Formats: sequence, C-alpha cells, structure tokens
Amino acid sequence: MSTAATTELERLLGTKVLTDPDRTGSWSRDQSPLADVGTPLAVVRATSTDDVVATLRVATSFGVPVVTRGAGSGLAGGANASDGCILLSVEGMDEIVEIDPARRTATVQPGVINSALGRAAAEHGLRYTPDPGSRDISSIGGNIATNAGGMTCCKYGVTADHVASLVAVLPDGTVVRTGATTRKNVTGLDLTRLLIGSEGTLAVVVEATVWLKPVSEHESTIVAMFPTVDAAVQAVVATTARTTPSAMELMDRTTIAAVNALTGMGIDAEAEAVLLITCDGPAAATEAVVCEEVASAHGATEVFRTDDRDEGAELMNARRMALPALEKQGSILLDDVGVPVGLLPDMVAAIAKVSAEHDVVVGTFGHAADGNLHPTIIFDPADDAARQRAREAFADIVRAALALGGTVSGEHGIGSLKLPFVTEMYGAAEIALMHRVKAAFDPDGIMNPGRGY
Amino acid sequence: MSTAATTELERLLGTKVLTDPDRTGSWSRDQSPLADVGTPLAVVRATSTDDVVATLRVATSFGVPVVTRGAGSGLAGGANASDGCILLSVEGMDEIVEIDPARRTATVQPGVINSALGRAAAEHGLRYTPDPGSRDISSIGGNIATNAGGMTCCKYGVTADHVASLVAVLPDGTVVRTGATTRKNVTGLDLTRLLIGSEGTLAVVVEATVWLKPVSEHESTIVAMFPTVDAAVQAVVATTARTTPSAMELMDRTTIAAVNALTGMGIDAEAEAVLLITCDGPAAATEAVVCEEVASAHGATEVFRTDDRDEGAELMNARRMALPALEKQGSILLDDVGVPVGLLPDMVAAIAKVSAEHDVVVGTFGHAADGNLHPTIIFDPADDAARQRAREAFADIVRAALALGGTVSGEHGIGSLKLPFVTEMYGAAEIALMHRVKAAFDPDGIMNPGRGY
Repeated sequence: MSTAATTELERLLGTKVLTDPDRTGSWSRDQSPLADVGTPLAVVRATSTDDVVATLRVATSFGVPVVTRGAGSGLAGGANASDGCILLSVEGMDEIVEIDPARRTATVQPGVINSALGRAAAEHGLRYTPDPGSRDISSIGGNIATNAGGMTCCKYGVTADHVASLVAVLPDGTVVRTGATTRKNVTGLDLTRLLIGSEGTLAVVVEATVWLKPVSEHESTIVAMFPTVDAAVQAVVATTARTTPSAMELMDRTTIAAVNALTGMGIDAEAEAVLLITCDGPAAATEAVVCEEVASAHGATEVFRTDDRDEGAELMNARRMALPALEKQGSILLDDVGVPVGLLPDMVAAIAKVSAEHDVVVGTFGHAADGNLHPTIIFDPADDAARQRAREAFADIVRAALALGGTVSGEHGIGSLKLPFVTEMYGAAEIALMHRVKAAFDPDGIMNPGRGY
Repeated sequence: MSTAATTELERLLGTKVLTDPDRTGSWSRDQSPLADVGTPLAVVRATSTDDVVATLRVATSFGVPVVTRGAGSGLAGGANASDGCILLSVEGMDEIVEIDPARRTATVQPGVINSALGRAAAEHGLRYTPDPGSRDISSIGGNIATNAGGMTCCKYGVTADHVASLVAVLPDGTVVRTGATTRKNVTGLDLTRLLIGSEGTLAVVVEATVWLKPVSEHESTIVAMFPTVDAAVQAVVATTARTTPSAMELMDRTTIAAVNALTGMGIDAEAEAVLLITCDGPAAATEAVVCEEVASAHGATEVFRTDDRDEGAELMNARRMALPALEKQGSILLDDVGVPVGLLPDMVAAIAKVSAEHDVVVGTFGHAADGNLHPTIIFDPADDAARQRAREAFADIVRAALALGGTVSGEHGIGSLKLPFVTEMYGAAEIALMHRVKAAFDPDGIMNPGRGY
C-alpha cells in the first residue's frame, strides 16, 4: 500500500517526491531536541496549491498520514516526520503574492519567511507585527500552524490577531477560503481562527492574507537591571497595570551570562535579572518614562533609556540571542509556559524551586508582559541521569504553570513533546470535542495524527 | 412527542417553563422587524447551569430544536422562536460572578447586560471595551453569540478579542470549559473563538471570563461636518492611515435630521455628513490634532474639538441615538455591511445608487473606521410596494458590499434575515465545512437549526 502511494505520488509530482532515506532525513525533524522522530515514506516538496491538492488526495486514497512542514523551526516536534508518513514540505511555496498598501494587507504563500515579509512591508512604510524569536528562520505557514507569538504581542497581539483570510486544502483535496479582509466579519463560523494554531491537524494552509500596520515613528527602549528576578517581575506586573509597552522582555542571570559569553555584549553580570522594554507609537516617550519610574520604584539598580531606534534595536538584540546563547551551554529543553501576568512572581518562584529540587540549571527568559516565559533547562546530553532530571524538571515546570491557572504552551505549540500535558489542562470532554472538530475536517484522521491535542 | 417533551421539562423545571402562548409570545422575537417568527413549544427561563443542562438533555431526548435567547436585542432574527422549538432564555442568569482587578478579568453569567458589566468594572477603574450600540439593553451572552462590535472596536477590537474563556453546555448536556486566562494560549484547538459568533448553533454559553482594561485618563472628542458623504469617508480613510482613533463614527444627512428631530440637539442640518471621533490613551491630544487636520484637509466645513470627557460623551450620544431616531421615521430595515476601509467611498456611492434605483430613503450611519456601515432603509409599513422596494434595496446593498470584497454582516449576525446571502459570500465547500463543524457539537442538529450559515 505504501509503495503504491509512493508510486502514485511520483507519477503525479515527479522529482518533487523524495524517498531515499539519505535525502528525506534532513526534512524529518524540527528544532526540538527531545521530540520523537520517525522515518517518512516520502517527502513531497510542493511548489503550488495543485501539488498540495495532489499530495493530499493520494494520502487520502491510500490512508497515509500527512505531516506538513514549513521552515522546520518548530520547538515541539509538531512537524517531525512520523513513521510511514508523507512529509509535505511547503517551504518552496515562498511567494509574496501581493502587498496592498491601501488595504494594508499582504497575501503570501505559507513558505514565506516572517522577516522577509517584514522587509517587503517596510518598503511601503508598513510592518507585520508578529515577531517570533525565530522570525529570520520561521515561515508564515508555521507561524499560523502554531499561532506564533513574539516580543510585540503584549501590545499588538499574536499571529491570529493579524490573519484576515486563509486558503487551505482539506485532506480530500477540497480548497476552502475562510474569512474576509474587512476589519469586522461575523458571517458564519470563524474557520480562520480554528485553523490558526491547529498544528497541521486539520488542513494545509496554502495562502494567507494578513494585516499590516504602519511603522511607528517613535520608539523608546529601556534596559533595567534588577537585584532579584522577583523584583523584575513585580515591576512587570506594576508596569502593565499602568501602561502598554510594545515589548517587555525578561532575562535572568543564567541567560545574561550566556548572552554575554556568546556576544561579548557586557550586560551587568552581577544583576539577577534584566528587563528590556520598548514603547512605540505617538506616546512612546511618555510611556517610557512610566516604565523607567516603575523600574526604579521596584529597586532597579540601573535604568538606561534611549529614544534612538537603532541603539534600541541593538539592545533588544541581546534578548533575541537568548536561545542561541543558551544552546551553546549544553543540550537544552526549552519550555513555553504562560500564566496570568499577575502571577509571574509565583511562576518564577516555582521555577527556582523546581531547579533546586531536580538539581538542574534553568535559564529563564521570555515575554514577561504576556506572562509567557521560556524556562530553559540546560543539561549534559551524555549524562543519562542529567537528561532524566531535565525531563522531570520540564514536566514540573509545566505543572506549576497549570497549578497557577496557566497554559501548557503560550506560543510554541503542543506538537508531540507536550501532548501528555494537554489532558492535565483540559478535561476529557473538551479534548473529545476537539477530536470531533478535527474529524469535521479530517474524517480519516490522516492529518498529523497524534499531535496537538 | 412534543407534549412529552413539555411534560418532562415541567417535571424537571416547574414554573420556569411557560407553555401558554399568551405568555410565550413576549419571548418569541428579537428586534428585527422582518425576520420570521414561529411559535415555541415552550419557553424555559433558566436561572442556573443545571437548568440549561436539564433543558438541553430533554431537547436531545425528544429531538426538539432549541433557540437560545439573551436579552432579545438581536437584529437578525437569530433568537426568534421557530415553530415547535424550546425557547431557552438565559436572561435570568445575570450574575457578575467575579471581578478580579489584579488579573483584570470579569467572570459573568450570559444574562449580564453589557453596560452593567461596564459599571461594575468602573468601580475598579476598569472598563469592558466592547460597546455595541445596544449596550444598555444587550447581554454579554448575546454579544458573544453574535461577536458584537461597537464604536471602540477600531482601536480595541470586537467581543471575540476580549473573551478569555467560556463555559458552555453541549446539546447532550456535557459542560465544557474552553480557553485560559493567560494572554497567550495555544494549547489545543481554539474552541473559544469557534463558539463566539456561532449564534446559538453549537452550544449554550453559561459563563464567560472576559478581559478588562484600565479606564483611559485622557479622551478627546472631535465633531467634523462635511459637505458630502464622500468627503467624510475620504477623511476616514486618510485618518486611519495616520492614527488610531478610539471611535470614528459616520452619520449622513438623513440620520442627522432624524437625530435632531428626536433629541433637539441641533447638529448642522445643512451638512451632508458628520464624523464623530474620539481619541484616548496617553497620546489622545496628539492623535486628536491629527484627526482635526485630516478633517480640515478633506473639506470639513466645521471642526469642533473638546478634551472634556463629559462634553465628549454628550456629543457621542448623538451617534448612539441614530437607530432610535431613524426608527421614529417609519419602519426600518437596518443593514450591517462591512467593506475594507479603503473602499468606503465606493460603498457610500453604491448605497446612493441603490437608494435612487429603488426609490427608497436610506439613512446611513456606522463604524466608519472599521468599514462597518448600517445603511438603514426607512419605509411605510402600510405600503406593500414600499416594503417590497425596501427588501430589494436591502439585498442590493448587501450585494454591493460583497462585490467590494466585503461581508454580509460586520457585527449583527446572520440569524435568519441574512441567511440567503451567506452562499453569495462563501462557497459550497466552506458552508459544508461549517455544517460538519456544527455536527461535531450538535450531531442531532437541534441547536438553532437553519440559522447563521
């Protein structure tokens, strides 16, 4: 049966189909070090909607599971090959179809890299605000599949808040168009939102029309050093109650040291935490003053501010280096928990407790103003006991977030890595309902089965 | 069978069940004058989640359709009784369960009136921003069912953007809890968004946790008079390209005259259009100056501005009177189309053409900054030919919006009134998919059948 499916794919799609394991291997995994990886039956490198339709029809005919893959920058194993699947890569569908400056929309294929869209929008004085840390390597299709976040979500919202309309292919090959490019639209069920964050379990997005915003004329950046992580997150809670920064990022001492080691930036290594804050829009300067005041009132040992955009961007770059910097320290297990912002102090206390209990090093950074943290466990991959302790600490951090009314994943997705925790967040009735909704799209259960929920 | 269902409802719910047509009649219709109305089998006045569960279980057992009703202020017939249905009123579930100022959330039952929540939030210096014109008479449950909009959506988003989590009862009586009170949450499918705007076709919302925002310290209000509707909407397009007002409302000459007649406000009756604009937040004054400049540059004959919040509220009240004022002029057929903001000039031109072609009076007002207009046809209900012309004009206005890439409904919902147009916006594949999704919640098809999509 599998051979027949491969033969049919090759008949329809020729050299776009790869079956040699030496070649398919490089498409088989995302960037999550510990998620399971299988061996695909075939890789299809789609370059058009027709290719996607043909692939899904074959998959449906032969009952073969399909794993859709964008740029492969995922962190939860959601795009890893499963054994015997068709690995459908949409990386080659990377055309910016249209930028409409009057309507302030961009229409793109799923393989377009996030920052490439940003550059194209900038030519019209516009920006695409969702800015995951991976923006230089992640695709819009993957951003949609995970409902990706980023640094500016605290002011501008996540990927889902910027998608007007989608074109998607159902497993039987039917092409559907969802949503509208109006600011408000209540006609019918919101299929657009349903597809966003569905991690390839419903359909394959082949085109997206997203909202662009004008580039802000003003941007102020603040760097504030704190003697404790608790003081830093208390400042976050107080700041977000008074104003709306366009980014408010936390890095703890472990992360600071890693960033210094990688970049030689020389952030104060004695501080236990740093907040990197931006304010934009017409009130940027006023809002920045509030941020400075609150930081000082919460015991910041140093507060630096610049209204120079380039200097600010350089400072924020320290935060963008957090993950690559920590990756240099050993193997990492990156978490992505979210809690109500007011409970950040409880969450950082819980992380410290887990770190001590399991004797693991945790570098914590993240989107503090959203209550979305990335506690990152660093371990020696050659040490089996350390690996086991890392896994246990990872689970305890997720459970600590859930105990605070938080979420298993704020922006990376569930993939396979976090699947065991979904049943600890939602009840059986909610998960059964999700599976029934999935079946409305995918009655044969071939779309990324066993992932997401 | 119907009698058996009634008997069972009465056994379980006693005097909460009404079957006397003299009494059920007043629960049988919303505020849409032309949508179909049937005779319910029974009205259930639920006061608890248990009542809703019991009602839905009986409905499922006996295969009786269920129409859920909040405050009955709908404008599309979505909560009108259908023949032989159980009309489930959740109006009595009107408790504000909790306001959490630290988390900035409110947890409410569905029958809570929008402005009652606003007043309760104000006691904590907070506000619930979704502000439909009906805020004094519409309930949060109904706002959720229709994904209601309002005046401040152009800056703050629609109802869906303010709902963190829902508790809903499925037709078989299962209670599900969706979402999380974190700013970001990508765990599982987005069932919260799916329920919002679903017009009672999936489940019954029995509790909602919504986001609150701090009250803005600053608010500036601008009134600008224009010699043509086109000049006014050209100003809207130009303003929204430069800044983000917290409201930007249009009224045409017909609407102005009606408001003057009702309120004696004395808005310039010679103007063809007025824009009522507010700016809030720390940059309110700066943004208001931009709005004034753009209005003048687009030929405004008079521009008035106040930074006094009370005076501003009084001016905006003129806009809130638009619908009641037009209702005094005859029977009305209120539309709710949305187009991309840049195409507003085309939409107002199309409305003028339809008005001339069908010889009908149309008063147009609406949320211009969102491209969401309410062209309102005024007709003599005693004149059959006029009624017919009104219906035809109504249809042509919807079709003009669709021809501009717009939507059948921006914020009122489809109900039964606009059902014929849904198939002109979405294709058969999209609508079939919506019905399969509905079946995932409602396999027997008893939830508000024949409404919404």
